[in-house]
Amino acid sequence: MLTDFTFPSEEMIASFVGKNILGAPQFSKEELEAVLGVAAFYEKALKEGKRLWDMDGKVMAALFFEPSTRTRLSFETAMHRLGGRVITLAESPENQISSTSKGETVHDTIKMVDNYADVIVIRSPRTGDAEIAANAASHPVVNAGDGFGQHPSQALLDMYTIVKEKGNPEGLTVAMIGDLKYGRTVHSLVDFLKYYKCRLVMASPDELKMPESIVQKMLDNGVEVKFCATIDEAVAEADIIYMTRVQKERFADLAEYDAVKDMFLMNGETLQHFKPGAVIMHALPRVNEISLDVDDYPGAAYFRQAGNGLFVRMALLALTTGNVRGAFKPEWAL
Amino acid sequence: MLTDFTFPSEEMIASFVGKNILGAPQFSKEELEAVLGVAAFYEKALKEGKRLWDMDGKVMAALFFEPSTRTRLSFETAMHRLGGRVITLAESPENQISSTSKGETVHDTIKMVDNYADVIVIRSPRTGDAEIAANAASHPVVNAGDGFGQHPSQALLDMYTIVKEKGNPEGLTVAMIGDLKYGRTVHSLVDFLKYYKCRLVMASPDELKMPESIVQKMLDNGVEVKFCATIDEAVAEADIIYMTRVQKERFADLAEYDAVKDMFLMNGETLQHFKPGAVIMHALPRVNEISLDVDDYPGAAYFRQAGNGLFVRMALLALTTGNVRGAFKPEWAL
Amino acid sequence: MLTDFTFPSEEMIASFVGKNILGAPQFSKEELEAVLGVAAFYEKALKEGKRLWDMDGKVMAALFFEPSTRTRLSFETAMHRLGGRVITLAESPENQISSTSKGETVHDTIKMVDNYADVIVIRSPRTGDAEIAANAASHPVVNAGDGFGQHPSQALLDMYTIVKEKGNPEGLTVAMIGDLKYGRTVHSLVDFLKYYKCRLVMASPDELKMPESIVQKMLDNGVEVKFCATIDEAVAEADIIYMTRVQKERFADLAEYDAVKDMFLMNGETLQHFKPGAVIMHALPRVNEISLDVDDYPGAAYFRQAGNGLFVRMALLALTTGNVRGAFKPEWAL
Repeated sequence: MLTDFTFPSEEMIASFVGKNILGAPQFSKEELEAVLGVAAFYEKALKEGKRLWDMDGKVMAALFFEPSTRTRLSFETAMHRLGGRVITLAESPENQISSTSKGETVHDTIKMVDNYADVIVIRSPRTGDAEIAANAASHPVVNAGDGFGQHPSQALLDMYTIVKEKGNPEGLTVAMIGDLKYGRTVHSLVDFLKYYKCRLVMASPDELKMPESIVQKMLDNGVEVKFCATIDEAVAEADIIYMTRVQKERFADLAEYDAVKDMFLMNGETLQHFKPGAVIMHALPRVNEISLDVDDYPGAAYFRQAGNGLFVRMALLALTTGNVRGAFKPEWAL
Repeated sequence: MLTDFTFPSEEMIASFVGKNILGAPQFSKEELEAVLGVAAFYEKALKEGKRLWDMDGKVMAALFFEPSTRTRLSFETAMHRLGGRVITLAESPENQISSTSKGETVHDTIKMVDNYADVIVIRSPRTGDAEIAANAASHPVVNAGDGFGQHPSQALLDMYTIVKEKGNPEGLTVAMIGDLKYGRTVHSLVDFLKYYKCRLVMASPDELKMPESIVQKMLDNGVEVKFCATIDEAVAEADIIYMTRVQKERFADLAEYDAVKDMFLMNGETLQHFKPGAVIMHALPRVNEISLDVDDYPGAAYFRQAGNGLFVRMALLALTTGNVRGAFKPEWAL
Repeated sequence: MLTDFTFPSEEMIASFVGKNILGAPQFSKEELEAVLGVAAFYEKALKEGKRLWDMDGKVMAALFFEPSTRTRLSFETAMHRLGGRVITLAESPENQISSTSKGETVHDTIKMVDNYADVIVIRSPRTGDAEIAANAASHPVVNAGDGFGQHPSQALLDMYTIVKEKGNPEGLTVAMIGDLKYGRTVHSLVDFLKYYKCRLVMASPDELKMPESIVQKMLDNGVEVKFCATIDEAVAEADIIYMTRVQKERFADLAEYDAVKDMFLMNGETLQHFKPGAVIMHALPRVNEISLDVDDYPGAAYFRQAGNGLFVRMALLALTTGNVRGAFKPEWAL
């Protein structure tokens, strides 16, 4: 029972060494809880002011083929907090600043970077790039989001947040609001929620419903699924409310977008419909899907959620490279 | 009397912990001299080849929402020389590489980064962004320039430079040349000069005169103010000559710009009008406002001035985070 | 005889301190072998898992006025692996993110950065910028490629690769294929090959022949030079095959480009013409000049070659700053 985080066994820790982190589905329940346990270990160490150097002397390559400030800074900070070093390639489709602009493939870029780094974090607008990278590299590759594919560290930090905010996730009711069709985040999260028989309550525009295949996967795992017409209805029975953004560019018909664009927003009024103690999550950045007057609500966890990304990413970097050592600088070094 | 720098008292050092550095006006004379004293302490340590680690294990976020190479590299080096780590977000208006391009507010970006960093340095083209950041963050925020607002670390390094170059600033005559209307730098500097009863001598195009409110503030503080028609007249009685650039885009009428654009430039000929030992300062980058033949003049202090930014920024980072410790790596680590 | 690498004498190491690394021609045979010897020393240390801190407390500035991911990440990693810190200015002609966009000269930028860094690495699209930088800086400058000028660290890593792959380079036959007119890489390499009386075999389009002056320099040094019409003919007698890209923009007449563009490509079929044990090199990135089916050939050394850049650049940084110390963190720090 996951009411609290447990530091994993040596065998479990050893099983991560050299592994690529490509998607949420690769994690068994035990592996998921192992990552969360190591994340909690690092969170505690940082809170106590310990100077970690588990990854002293090691180098992480952050290859961001599309901009993602939050994820990049979170991974970079994770490596720094572990005492390691960072090399960064940050480019956007509009601003190709690397040799990939000369026509180099992701495969070749990875073959090159693999010479320099002990672990490679890759973000790409192209689905499948993380797997291409993993095949090219001799060092572990961590997928930081590839197109419509996976974003496993986000799903892991979401689970970490749920447990920190609510304790045992067993049987919780999770409301998912907004764009459930293209939302990589919620798709990955359900892969973990199924381990704890969480109930799913969903509210989205018709165009942006959760894909049937994912719903079926949940049902096959004995997860109860419910569809609601309004956000107020969905939040009414939720312990966790996961907000996502409804983006204009997802709609072929702009009239359709205009009709629904204000239906799945949360504001201070929405809070009236909450169960006591309900928690609001969001992968950020937000635009207007959560209004500012919600920020003061004690269960508004989205900024804490972003913070949790740090500990989970520290765990992934240290686990895959075999550096979960709990090495602290001695007293005189503080 | 500030003829030399004095390391501040423990009480004074403690008073900086957790403070935001938003603008020059927030500094009392004692606080100003405390920062300079700590800067001098760090300069001495570096000159002696000491390996500092006052900020070992700590992370600085450099958020540059507009390009400013000099200021960014100076802050980043300051953190590295203190043994700390750096995460950087560098974007330009033309090249929005962060999630702020998806519509995220500065407030939300800071709430996120506040989870990762122990101190946040922000540069923005929008006046007031530094204060928004300070309100959003639980960690100290250092304003590295916000629009037409403040740029306090520049004013501090300017004062540090004046004292290093001339000793006691009491009663010095400071000439300010060029754009005194939009020049954030000279506006901030006068807030410090008033503590030492410096005389101000100004030469600028009519369109770019020092704002009346600032002149009045100087007069109210018993500072003598004089306006000159030419650069030659202004430099004639100056101990310090602070050059700024006259930019074309400040003029509504281009004919007006053409009429004055060459009037406030300094070249080898201008040096003939100097008092012996006069010092030239400039916040850099320069274009043509100081010609290359001036660089060999011993009092041409602008590159030394840029170097002083390092020590002052080390002081600000260590003071606000409570890390002025003078922690050096032991002998065997050298 | 350079069959293996030899760690240089103290006098030789001392002779590098404070030197700028501007071009391959500046290296005597003894100096070349000294760099390779230090590179081998660092490679061995890294392979043994040692945590170097020869450059602990030091700062390298990476000033990239044009994008070059491979070279930048390689230099940055070199500094990190030596325990040092990195500040980076990465801009492209299309995306001027530094104050150089405000009209600042390279000279002034270097004068500024010289205050912050212990060693300056510069990459520029303008031939001669590295020398301008060296004149402006008090710290060592390493040229990471300037326009059609030099790229000495590339030539050094190429020699390091040749010795690692083939042992003693004395008398080897080196085939150079593709664009030999504009290829900075091959021009620099011949400056080293002449020390070992390597035979040169060249195959290129008529428009892109090796410049006469370089050919003459080789002949003057007693190097045998041969021109071949086809790639198959050139590779037939080669121990080392150095591939370069034939770029469309080099041709005034596109019909001419179309006529030759496929003539100097290497694919699996080309391998049939190889001498046993022949080694393929390429400075990367490649586009289509080496097809993917060549990658599995054991002598395909181009990714290993990129990796060798790390050790050679570690050597250059430590040598020029006087930090070849072989300082390792103590056991308890691992």
